[in-house]
Amino acid sequence: MSANSFGRRLVMTCFGESHGKLVGVIVDGCPAGLKIDERDIQRELDKRRPGSTPYSTSRAEPDKAMIVSGILDGYTTGAPICIVVGNRDVDSKPYEVFRFKPRPGHADYPAYIRYGGFNDYRGGGRFSGRITVSFVAAGAVAKKLLETIGIEVYGHVCQIGEVSSRRLPTIDELRKVYENPVRCAIPELISGMEDILKRSVEEGDSIGSMVEAFAFNVPPGLGDPIFHGLDVDIASIMLAIPGVRALSIGLGFEAASMKGSDFIDPYTIVDGRVSQKSNRCGGILGGLSTGNPIHIRVSFRPPSTIGKRVETINLKTMTIDHIEAWGRYDPCIGIRALPVVEGCLAFVIADHCLNQGLIPAVISGESGRAT
Amino acid sequence: MSANSFGRRLVMTCFGESHGKLVGVIVDGCPAGLKIDERDIQRELDKRRPGSTPYSTSRAEPDKAMIVSGILDGYTTGAPICIVVGNRDVDSKPYEVFRFKPRPGHADYPAYIRYGGFNDYRGGGRFSGRITVSFVAAGAVAKKLLETIGIEVYGHVCQIGEVSSRRLPTIDELRKVYENPVRCAIPELISGMEDILKRSVEEGDSIGSMVEAFAFNVPPGLGDPIFHGLDVDIASIMLAIPGVRALSIGLGFEAASMKGSDFIDPYTIVDGRVSQKSNRCGGILGGLSTGNPIHIRVSFRPPSTIGKRVETINLKTMTIDHIEAWGRYDPCIGIRALPVVEGCLAFVIADHCLNQGLIPAVISGESGRAT
Amino acid sequence: MSANSFGRRLVMTCFGESHGKLVGVIVDGCPAGLKIDERDIQRELDKRRPGSTPYSTSRAEPDKAMIVSGILDGYTTGAPICIVVGNRDVDSKPYEVFRFKPRPGHADYPAYIRYGGFNDYRGGGRFSGRITVSFVAAGAVAKKLLETIGIEVYGHVCQIGEVSSRRLPTIDELRKVYENPVRCAIPELISGMEDILKRSVEEGDSIGSMVEAFAFNVPPGLGDPIFHGLDVDIASIMLAIPGVRALSIGLGFEAASMKGSDFIDPYTIVDGRVSQKSNRCGGILGGLSTGNPIHIRVSFRPPSTIGKRVETINLKTMTIDHIEAWGRYDPCIGIRALPVVEGCLAFVIADHCLNQGLIPAVISGESGRAT
Amino acid sequence: MSANSFGRRLVMTCFGESHGKLVGVIVDGCPAGLKIDERDIQRELDKRRPGSTPYSTSRAEPDKAMIVSGILDGYTTGAPICIVVGNRDVDSKPYEVFRFKPRPGHADYPAYIRYGGFNDYRGGGRFSGRITVSFVAAGAVAKKLLETIGIEVYGHVCQIGEVSSRRLPTIDELRKVYENPVRCAIPELISGMEDILKRSVEEGDSIGSMVEAFAFNVPPGLGDPIFHGLDVDIASIMLAIPGVRALSIGLGFEAASMKGSDFIDPYTIVDGRVSQKSNRCGGILGGLSTGNPIHIRVSFRPPSTIGKRVETINLKTMTIDHIEAWGRYDPCIGIRALPVVEGCLAFVIADHCLNQGLIPAVISGESGRAT
Repeated sequence: MSANSFGRRLVMTCFGESHGKLVGVIVDGCPAGLKIDERDIQRELDKRRPGSTPYSTSRAEPDKAMIVSGILDGYTTGAPICIVVGNRDVDSKPYEVFRFKPRPGHADYPAYIRYGGFNDYRGGGRFSGRITVSFVAAGAVAKKLLETIGIEVYGHVCQIGEVSSRRLPTIDELRKVYENPVRCAIPELISGMEDILKRSVEEGDSIGSMVEAFAFNVPPGLGDPIFHGLDVDIASIMLAIPGVRALSIGLGFEAASMKGSDFIDPYTIVDGRVSQKSNRCGGILGGLSTGNPIHIRVSFRPPSTIGKRVETINLKTMTIDHIEAWGRYDPCIGIRALPVVEGCLAFVIADHCLNQGLIPAVISGESGRAT
Repeated sequence: MSANSFGRRLVMTCFGESHGKLVGVIVDGCPAGLKIDERDIQRELDKRRPGSTPYSTSRAEPDKAMIVSGILDGYTTGAPICIVVGNRDVDSKPYEVFRFKPRPGHADYPAYIRYGGFNDYRGGGRFSGRITVSFVAAGAVAKKLLETIGIEVYGHVCQIGEVSSRRLPTIDELRKVYENPVRCAIPELISGMEDILKRSVEEGDSIGSMVEAFAFNVPPGLGDPIFHGLDVDIASIMLAIPGVRALSIGLGFEAASMKGSDFIDPYTIVDGRVSQKSNRCGGILGGLSTGNPIHIRVSFRPPSTIGKRVETINLKTMTIDHIEAWGRYDPCIGIRALPVVEGCLAFVIADHCLNQGLIPAVISGESGRAT
Repeated sequence: MSANSFGRRLVMTCFGESHGKLVGVIVDGCPAGLKIDERDIQRELDKRRPGSTPYSTSRAEPDKAMIVSGILDGYTTGAPICIVVGNRDVDSKPYEVFRFKPRPGHADYPAYIRYGGFNDYRGGGRFSGRITVSFVAAGAVAKKLLETIGIEVYGHVCQIGEVSSRRLPTIDELRKVYENPVRCAIPELISGMEDILKRSVEEGDSIGSMVEAFAFNVPPGLGDPIFHGLDVDIASIMLAIPGVRALSIGLGFEAASMKGSDFIDPYTIVDGRVSQKSNRCGGILGGLSTGNPIHIRVSFRPPSTIGKRVETINLKTMTIDHIEAWGRYDPCIGIRALPVVEGCLAFVIADHCLNQGLIPAVISGESGRAT
Repeated sequence: MSANSFGRRLVMTCFGESHGKLVGVIVDGCPAGLKIDERDIQRELDKRRPGSTPYSTSRAEPDKAMIVSGILDGYTTGAPICIVVGNRDVDSKPYEVFRFKPRPGHADYPAYIRYGGFNDYRGGGRFSGRITVSFVAAGAVAKKLLETIGIEVYGHVCQIGEVSSRRLPTIDELRKVYENPVRCAIPELISGMEDILKRSVEEGDSIGSMVEAFAFNVPPGLGDPIFHGLDVDIASIMLAIPGVRALSIGLGFEAASMKGSDFIDPYTIVDGRVSQKSNRCGGILGGLSTGNPIHIRVSFRPPSTIGKRVETINLKTMTIDHIEAWGRYDPCIGIRALPVVEGCLAFVIADHCLNQGLIPAVISGESGRAT
């Protein structure tokens, strides 16, 4: 299977490079009859677009989505949906310097070895964060699918540097998260986070972050066993996002220091339905959804591109060297990665919903086109 | 693709239930000519076997490996290798009680929904930790493959409850880890961990844990892009291990609070070869190995089976109920899960080595059988 | 993906060798709640068993099916179903002679190269027709699934040597096909076929054959586009049956010499439903079912094992050699391969029915086990 | 897995519709360092282009290949290669008539059912022969890969209507096949084939055809077992080509009427190497290559679009109707499908060569870019 493809029923195949002509994605397996157009894709892309937050790279990209196949008269046809986004503000010159001087913390060196030096080195090429445009576009399709059955996916930046909180946000807080510059749904954290970001920029440094995401209204029993548990597929796609270094489901890393009696979520009955009194398990047990919200966290490393002098080597001369102030970058990944995490979570859940027949093979018969 | 299968070139397909006839695994894609026999499998299974540590369930299983296909005269033939392990000490009676009373923290309830009540409920059925026998057996094959190219995989229990250390163990400490009862390679932590375990048993409670694993001598450039990065595949298989709730690569969750200048691993040259001055990235950048040891941690929840009264419900009567002291269990998952984590890590690396031709299609021509 | 696995939703993974301990199959993805037991498997295996027809090998195998996982109290649980069949009448001695003298027409020589001489050479090892036991067992599960939605699969031997007919059998003729020794549903062909078989045995020779199979009551619109069209998946599995050299859908090879106006199946309306006036397309257009019966033919080469002297070489000495009268064999593959073709056709159709939700994720809620 | 994807190591994912913006393909898994540019793709596309033979549709398409990712400075980078071809001469008007009047012999009716009427009906949409542009483009990449190890793929139209020959063409005849209007490598058949085609056009009818293809210099032992035998994968991709109704390996359908003693290819030694005295098995035994040329035939139905009145129905009114002279078409599929068959055969062989390490992960280190 293509290493650039993800999913079983709903499959995304992504392509394109940071400084190439475009980045794009094919979404295959989407049922026919889904009402969707370029604005639905654009709305999501706009959240990831450079400039969508004050704390982002100066690269100016309009990131206009173009659907080139799979949709006719505003409805999916059942054919593969190809969405492309052109690259505009490409400035590859600074990267000539780094061609044989691998940037520490980036994939430059292992990619040079892996591809015998043929890899596209401009702007990180295929290893750039820019490829997540594909994930967001695919996620936009997934979100439209989930909308048809009432599943909603939200996230926020729950930690920047040392600033975080144990409190979980409410769904109302989550719905407004794109209104604040750091995209944190816990209002009391925002100013602290901004302070850290400003200091980081001043120091020519970067800072780590954590994104937390939720899926609401997922019915119980969603997921496949063992190697395609809901948590397994979520882990798989999240680790594919550039910069992600850790993932947890519910109380994940905390679990290692907890007692069983404190961790177990007891069952009860609310309004005649099975419910859990707590959600430490993050809505997933044995790879299957419990009916509680899915709750995950992903940890982003600080961006590896910083304004400081860093030691590296020259691969041609095999001598020690250094680099400084290379290219344009974000001070913190999580802020612009938020819609990526949301899109990826939505994608996994939509894939499983299709797999178990919760979303039908044709979305609706009453469309104008079909009759 | 089967949800009970994992891998691309080296594929394991596992089957069997906790209280059924057996558990087993098929390993497909193994090159012909690998010298391996039942003792190689058994050595690994013995590490996972109940009774292999003082802190384990009282279920008595000899866990004898039987190879039923794919190996002839002590060498792999290139055909699928099927390994089975019988279930002996099966006591399903206690589980009748839980058939309609889902055990909190286990997969009972979502599995009941997912499979319409037809799932094997005895001992957790397919959701039992016993299925990791399959992972260990498959991992044993992978370890033999890695041995042919000098890659070694080791792990240890780096945290039980609050007891942990920031120090990483040496390879010599790791090699002796099965000699101590808690399988921690940091000697100064052992007695503290034992204290916690004893207290946990006394209280009829259980305790969380963390396993840390390493792969040494992995050459740089191993891994596929995006959805089959080394970290992605590792995350995928680790989350499939029952009880795992979080995974990190190198400094994973810590990364969220770090500065870029503190996180980046600068390059240098040692003995004429590219090297990194530190290994905060855990040996993986952009999904590709850097040449440094692969370093991961997985967090295990405390076992959900405890000796205390826990609230649950009755699915037939839809009334609130409770359960108490149900079945046999380990007080801490990580100890017996250690060989599972090691086997799974070895499996992913072997799969990628085959994928990139580091391990050839036929292991060796000088074997007795071939000439 | 494992080369020994087939299917997307319903996946079979087969294992075992001709002269090893057993042959077996794992069927994964079968919905929970399907009523099935060993007799359902056995009934199909008995059709393939040596001795089930007068024209078969003298190898005596009871071929007893044993279900070792995935079924509890007579219902599938949703877990992988593993079925094994032991090998009994194994006589590997004659094969020592052929170890370095590849039998012409068998896979011996390319397998020797492929696996560096480590392949199991006894009785053809993994390349033996005996592995089709796995296909029949998996097909038996598929047939039970199809039964729940009224789809029936039948086949017959439509050609042996030059004896064939242009007439298609009726469904009633097909239902009785296992009652006659050559398993041909066209009564007027039987004696001619028997004559050929007898002559073939007398001459120490073997004879080619053709199997024709049908699936009835397949609703229109079944199939996925392009690389998983119904015809594509059928072709894929059929060519995996040892001895198959050609496959056609409807009027397949005849189509090359026909005019469009003679080949097209015009539409009409019968009883208020869309129908086709003819079925030259074999019930599949564009990879999708038309609502007419699926109709395929597969051509089997004459068995390569014959009683005559055949030229070959010695791979150790690299000299010209010959072999004679090697091992036990059938004079004609099609007769015992009939249940294999049927099982494989049923498997593909069941996989697609699951894929499109025609068979639900849980078969039925009213089973005794679930309540 | 995406139904629009094919391959395991070398994977093509195709997209686009007949009357949409474009058709395209992503080729993933291609090693880095392969020298290739748009002219290599174009050369193959030109063979398939309408107008490339006198016997083709009047649709005028320049079919210009544009590579939009995966190639830098004339070499593959290891990233997914995306190739697109715009649609120009789109005339969708005639298809409005057929929207609810399914064209017999086309996928219109089953696609209408499968996709609930949302499928792109213009020019057959996703079911048009135009999608084979994707196959040819992917095949062009595969041919360049095979070139690096000396494997050559050729084919010709071996039958049109009743005109065919038992003689196999020589490699020199095959190399010149695009020079004659019917693309038949057997010179003595050409005028007969032209007669049939002319008559067919005069009568407003169409005619069936057969394409025969060969791969030369394939080393012995290429192929995976059972479900990914070389023949299995070839069958799979060939049946995915619109219009293919049958496939045979070597003497495929003839095998059903042959004796074993006439069918077996005896081994001998030529110039110190193992050889077969004949090639009735078409170069494949047990799914593995024998070292002889791979030899396959695929049967194409007569085009379903003809100039005559054909009965059909109206899906809205559910009444009997008819259609006449619908759209532009080729009188015979095989002629323009020849490069499609060649490309597909090349693709399967390249995939297997990568799988077994015959083509390395990086093509060459001496390229200008890498140093």
